[in-house]
Amino acid sequence: MEQRISFVTLAVRDVAAARAFYVDGLGWTPALYVESEVLMFQVGAHAVLSLWDRAAFEAEVGPIGAQGGVPPVTLAHNVATPGEVDRILRRVEELGVGPVTAGRQRDWGGYTGYFADPDGYRWEVAFNPGPIGEVVLPR
Amino acid sequence: MEQRISFVTLAVRDVAAARAFYVDGLGWTPALYVESEVLMFQVGAHAVLSLWDRAAFEAEVGPIGAQGGVPPVTLAHNVATPGEVDRILRRVEELGVGPVTAGRQRDWGGYTGYFADPDGYRWEVAFNPGPIGEVVLPR
Repeated sequence: MEQRISFVTLAVRDVAAARAFYVDGLGWTPALYVESEVLMFQVGAHAVLSLWDRAAFEAEVGPIGAQGGVPPVTLAHNVATPGEVDRILRRVEELGVGPVTAGRQRDWGGYTGYFADPDGYRWEVAFNPGPIGEVVLPR
Repeated sequence: MEQRISFVTLAVRDVAAARAFYVDGLGWTPALYVESEVLMFQVGAHAVLSLWDRAAFEAEVGPIGAQGGVPPVTLAHNVATPGEVDRILRRVEELGVGPVTAGRQRDWGGYTGYFADPDGYRWEVAFNPGPIGEVVLPR
């Protein structure tokens, strides 16, 4: 099995609210949108983010059950400078959707902050000056 | 904000168990491994999967809290034929780690099945003959 992620699928309570955030708020362009069902975005050369109605997700994957805190997954969006981290976090904060954690220096040498989408999924906006940070930045 | 995922980070209870599964089991090559802390794999041209010690994840992102069922996220690994779906699922089932759901035809025209990693994160192994399935297959 090759080491390759083709889709990241997140269960969402309200596909329309997700659409309002990602399309109207962040300005993203859907690859597919089926009302009340699913919303997909191309997020890499061969990678798609899929926001899937929670009931449909549970019918196929299994019951999610209660969730008391933050989801156990984060998605990172890496950028080339700390200033760009701050700029994006400010822009998302203006949307007034979820909690935003300001950028800060991390022990490993990077500078990152977090925002939440309407379902509480955390996105890390990150500047990573190390070798792995170099790998993920498109040129 | 560009529509781009650089990292997918999953909180894991035991980084060594994750390493045994992904490296020894699936045969993947780590981009980074720090014992008891983190394990990273390059999973796309500019994308990294990070399996991060749950305590460290919670210290930075927030408490995850109780989880009663399957995680609310799935990762998909798309392949070019239904036969390849079956082949991968059989191989993973032989590892005897988590539940494996056999491949089946889906209403949307694809053929997919699921396996679970040691923390219960579901991977969907998928053949998707549609336009979005074409996008995610590397050529």
